[in-house]
Amino acid sequence: MKIDTEKLLMIPGPTMVPAEVLNAMALPIIGHRTGEFGELLVDTTEKMKKVFQTKNDTFIITGSGTAAMDMAILNVIDKGDKVLNIVNGNFGDRFAKITLAYKGESIKLENEWGDMAEPEAVKEILDKHDDIKAVTIVHNETSTGARNPIKDIGEIVKDYDALYIVDTVSSLGGDYVDVDKFNIDICVTGSQKCLAAPPGLSAITVSEKAWEVIEKTEKKSLYLDLEEYKKKYNEKKQTPYTPAVSLIYALNVALDLVLEEGLENRFKRHEKLAKATTAGLEAMGIELFAKERARSVTVTSAYLPKGVKDKEFRGLLSKKYNVVIAGGQAHLTGKIFRIGHMGTAKEIHILATLGAIEMALKELGVKVENGVEVAEEILMG
Amino acid sequence: MKIDTEKLLMIPGPTMVPAEVLNAMALPIIGHRTGEFGELLVDTTEKMKKVFQTKNDTFIITGSGTAAMDMAILNVIDKGDKVLNIVNGNFGDRFAKITLAYKGESIKLENEWGDMAEPEAVKEILDKHDDIKAVTIVHNETSTGARNPIKDIGEIVKDYDALYIVDTVSSLGGDYVDVDKFNIDICVTGSQKCLAAPPGLSAITVSEKAWEVIEKTEKKSLYLDLEEYKKKYNEKKQTPYTPAVSLIYALNVALDLVLEEGLENRFKRHEKLAKATTAGLEAMGIELFAKERARSVTVTSAYLPKGVKDKEFRGLLSKKYNVVIAGGQAHLTGKIFRIGHMGTAKEIHILATLGAIEMALKELGVKVENGVEVAEEILMG
Repeated sequence: MKIDTEKLLMIPGPTMVPAEVLNAMALPIIGHRTGEFGELLVDTTEKMKKVFQTKNDTFIITGSGTAAMDMAILNVIDKGDKVLNIVNGNFGDRFAKITLAYKGESIKLENEWGDMAEPEAVKEILDKHDDIKAVTIVHNETSTGARNPIKDIGEIVKDYDALYIVDTVSSLGGDYVDVDKFNIDICVTGSQKCLAAPPGLSAITVSEKAWEVIEKTEKKSLYLDLEEYKKKYNEKKQTPYTPAVSLIYALNVALDLVLEEGLENRFKRHEKLAKATTAGLEAMGIELFAKERARSVTVTSAYLPKGVKDKEFRGLLSKKYNVVIAGGQAHLTGKIFRIGHMGTAKEIHILATLGAIEMALKELGVKVENGVEVAEEILMG
Repeated sequence: MKIDTEKLLMIPGPTMVPAEVLNAMALPIIGHRTGEFGELLVDTTEKMKKVFQTKNDTFIITGSGTAAMDMAILNVIDKGDKVLNIVNGNFGDRFAKITLAYKGESIKLENEWGDMAEPEAVKEILDKHDDIKAVTIVHNETSTGARNPIKDIGEIVKDYDALYIVDTVSSLGGDYVDVDKFNIDICVTGSQKCLAAPPGLSAITVSEKAWEVIEKTEKKSLYLDLEEYKKKYNEKKQTPYTPAVSLIYALNVALDLVLEEGLENRFKRHEKLAKATTAGLEAMGIELFAKERARSVTVTSAYLPKGVKDKEFRGLLSKKYNVVIAGGQAHLTGKIFRIGHMGTAKEIHILATLGAIEMALKELGVKVENGVEVAEEILMG
């Protein structure tokens, strides 16, 4: 195995992980049916709840964010149940695919990719169908760098029977999320984004209203059955199946770092980094992809300059300048690039990334203005 | 977070993990959509195939062994399909529970816990029902320390249409498994047992015969859908969803250690450690639980001596003597104890464990003969 350990990882997750978090995984494994593990699980879960800002039951799952998205749907719908899937990107669409995989009826509210969903449009659909069982939305569309107004939409959904299911995979710990204030019934996130822990874990919160639905829903999985997680946690402070012990060590330390910095400070840092990144790119003469009113604070998306090929551009950035950024997904492949500035990302990373982009584009024959200096102005502020 | 790093972990998984495997997780995270990760995934998958002894498609899953067991069933059965679940322990029973969770019809072939399944009995059921879609069996019942004759049963199942699904979670890499020779259609394992990697990953192999069934089976999950894994691996050498990158680093190094030692040598080591453990316990005057003909080489189970309380015994072992062993599961709780001697377990660990058991039992007022010396004789051989 040979891993290049010198690259700057500026993709929208997994993110760079601080050494003290990585080193936690070098600790010996402990038995997952011991009291010692129980204490660790409770401690980690309680910290997760603080970050989610919730009193709802919260579970840590061994599996990626998609596993938690799967759980959010399969535990609350039966065959034929209507789900309103708000779609303005690849992950919004993933909720629709999951709805169909479990034989639900997916009502899609589609918005332009790169823009946000309109709360009023959600209300209209909820008024039209009185039997919608759940509304799904992605807070921060990793695929487009656009942010949805989950607080405003939560204000609407709370007046209906439908459960409010929110994916905060690439926002929790970097952007303002308050599960209880936003009336979120089921909130899912991943370890490898704004929490800056390694990938492989996800987390899910479940409200009382959601439990009432879950209890009446037919079992459709063993590994992803929420009631198994609840039972084992309440009875023994354990997980129903073997958890990724080392990843839980890492998540525990990563959550300490999040809480030490403080959620408010963390949100402000992400906002500043996003502002510097977008201003820097714009100063270079690069067109941003996400609409201004919908811009994410954790992921910036921009069009590839004319004539620049995605593979060539990102290849040069990675191979010559050691900066790894992401391309587009689905129909945006080859059209946009994406920069993740989340987790423990700092001023230095933004400067290095913008500078490397300048160099790579110049090398590819693109006329580029200086963007780094503009970014500096914001980063100093 | 406070972890006791000084204990000897002698439970039947997770096992102790060598420092070089743990340290691999301290490497920086790489992007999972990069060519570099693709190479790592292919390399790790190819090593996994060598250990499975198979040419079949093989996938590494972010999730525990139960996730892979879930996949083995949900991808091959539709509602009402008959599955023959061979049950002689907790994990055999888990396959039956999964069958029911996906609305299959579970035909249970139950055997005494601690004993093995009879190949002839399997044949009888397959002859009686001509529409059994799959046969499930657990090679090494972690819950009882008993081993099933998966080679002999494979010889029978291959003459029927039914798929042969085998759980080798606590045997692969420690006991003789040859997926292709044993005619196994779907074989699942976990990272945290005989492979001595950290918990959190599982692996699954899929035969051509199994793919034919999978293609005709209704989708019942997104996260655990095998065709998504196949498609993404074949097209891009990637996983469909974010994998636990750090755990794959660790698994890669752990597989190197397995292959360096050599499968044959590894099987012999496990056999010797098992013999020493059982002989040592018997010499002490402790009654073994699993029947002699069915004894596992990776887990030894034994009755708690009369009057000895499980919690008191294992508590003393762990707190005073720093040896962690497991109790019984399901109806065996409080009746048996289990020692795992798998992965990178060595002579020293058996000696220490047997010695600690002697001390703990003496302290609890049990008359115990010397077992360590008897074990030494075998370990020297």
